[in-house]
Amino acid sequence: MSLRSEILEQPAVLDRLFRTQKDHAGEMAQTIRDRGVRSIFLAARGTSDNAGLYAKYLFGSMNRLPVALAAPSLFTAYETPPNLEGHLVVGISQSGQSPDIVSVITEGRRQGAMTLAITNDPSSPLAKQAEMVLDTGAGPEKAIAATKTYTTQLLAIALLSAAMTDDPRLFEVLERLPHLVEETLGLETTIKSAAQRYRYMNQCVVIGRGYNYATAFEWALKLKEMTYVVAEPYSSADFLHGPIAIISHGFPVLAVAPQGAVSDNVNSLLSILVEEHGAELVVVSNDPSALERATTPLPLPTDLPE
Amino acid sequence: MSLRSEILEQPAVLDRLFRTQKDHAGEMAQTIRDRGVRSIFLAARGTSDNAGLYAKYLFGSMNRLPVALAAPSLFTAYETPPNLEGHLVVGISQSGQSPDIVSVITEGRRQGAMTLAITNDPSSPLAKQAEMVLDTGAGPEKAIAATKTYTTQLLAIALLSAAMTDDPRLFEVLERLPHLVEETLGLETTIKSAAQRYRYMNQCVVIGRGYNYATAFEWALKLKEMTYVVAEPYSSADFLHGPIAIISHGFPVLAVAPQGAVSDNVNSLLSILVEEHGAELVVVSNDPSALERATTPLPLPTDLPE
Repeated sequence: MSLRSEILEQPAVLDRLFRTQKDHAGEMAQTIRDRGVRSIFLAARGTSDNAGLYAKYLFGSMNRLPVALAAPSLFTAYETPPNLEGHLVVGISQSGQSPDIVSVITEGRRQGAMTLAITNDPSSPLAKQAEMVLDTGAGPEKAIAATKTYTTQLLAIALLSAAMTDDPRLFEVLERLPHLVEETLGLETTIKSAAQRYRYMNQCVVIGRGYNYATAFEWALKLKEMTYVVAEPYSSADFLHGPIAIISHGFPVLAVAPQGAVSDNVNSLLSILVEEHGAELVVVSNDPSALERATTPLPLPTDLPE
Repeated sequence: MSLRSEILEQPAVLDRLFRTQKDHAGEMAQTIRDRGVRSIFLAARGTSDNAGLYAKYLFGSMNRLPVALAAPSLFTAYETPPNLEGHLVVGISQSGQSPDIVSVITEGRRQGAMTLAITNDPSSPLAKQAEMVLDTGAGPEKAIAATKTYTTQLLAIALLSAAMTDDPRLFEVLERLPHLVEETLGLETTIKSAAQRYRYMNQCVVIGRGYNYATAFEWALKLKEMTYVVAEPYSSADFLHGPIAIISHGFPVLAVAPQGAVSDNVNSLLSILVEEHGAELVVVSNDPSALERATTPLPLPTDLPE
């Protein structure tokens, strides 16, 4: 049961990450400002790539930094990698071992760009190649599916973003995070019971937008890795452009739809899915109007800032 | 039958695009160089977003320009969009009407960045907002599924990339394109017959990498829009990190795997899929070693540069 125990470790590892890395994130933010960084180039794979998707939205909206997600094959298979001058080059990898992510950091450093590794192993090849390291400190990961290492990557990204905005209220919110995760883990029995209905589901789509576009990707990846369900993630905006055609009566749609800047858009898609296509919804939200559309509502316990 | 007739129009519209826009692409390339553009920020949705994925690889490898694919919600839903100074901001839209793509170009222009619209309608809102316009000139699109407008977007991107490299051999290759498409369309009868086997397929994955990562996305989108098959696109590198778990005996995997810089990597995944997971392969390729692994090989008629 290493998977379940690693899930339950999250409040403790998030709390430790906040306490040990907050000041370090502040120092890194200062260096990034001093070097006049204007864009971010980010390389990652799998679950870490989903954390990178969160970084794309967070750095874009909170720090006004455009984020390009790397195509690693441009560094490993094609002849000439992009020119990374003036970018902050970020590599995210739990183990810090992934050769193609290391190759992006190595190339960034060779070109004189600023480099940052976000990793769970500060002695890994990725950490050794990078100028700066943000250690997620999640402890050993034994389960094959990443859980605590993903959420610590998200917090590491949020710490760096908050440090770059210099807004102390953001740190107050992040400090509450371990407690909020603890509360959510208290829903285990409810969720276990709700999950029974989906025992023989063999395909579904997963919807999210904005900051939670990354959540949709990670939810879909976990379903594929652990339950072999063909689960495809979408933004609510993209799903309307063609893919909605696959939704027939009873087709399961999983949505992460908390209150926030994009909730009108997501809720309007959920209405269309139920009323015009007869989709069945599983909704994770703190928004009553999103939850009431769901066959299986999974209410978040607290009002959370998006 | 507007869909089939639009597919068959491709050699003619590609030939016209090459002839009418080649010099214009050269002028734009000169302007882009003069303005010292160092990165690209690209906004698109659906099929046009798949063309954007091709642009990410092509501009990255041929022109060494990092490409960030825009998150349109950062411009429409969240408060502060990214700072686009120094970027070339590109919007791709067949109709040029998509409000969120127009809003990215409008914001880029407001910030003083260079802006380019790639569109099939030079009188559209997108074209009017942009400083430069590349008109794909594909003629009216009546079918709901985009075909000729996608391939003309790809050629428009390739023309601009070739013009920025100043390598005349690239134009020689692009000039052959209408003829090569004509040859491929000659496979219609063979493909129609091969497709019968998949009449009751209800899910599949689609694999591509490098320049053809975009092809995998577009192939999957076409299957969803037109046949309601749950088809999920993957790079061969990402598919190994978790999602491969969904592949059981006989699971259909569609792959676009032509000869090129990434073919060793793609072929090695195809071997694993067949030998260790019993997947059934449909392979589009000009590479005999990829084709021989397939239950349904779809050989490309000619040796093509990747």
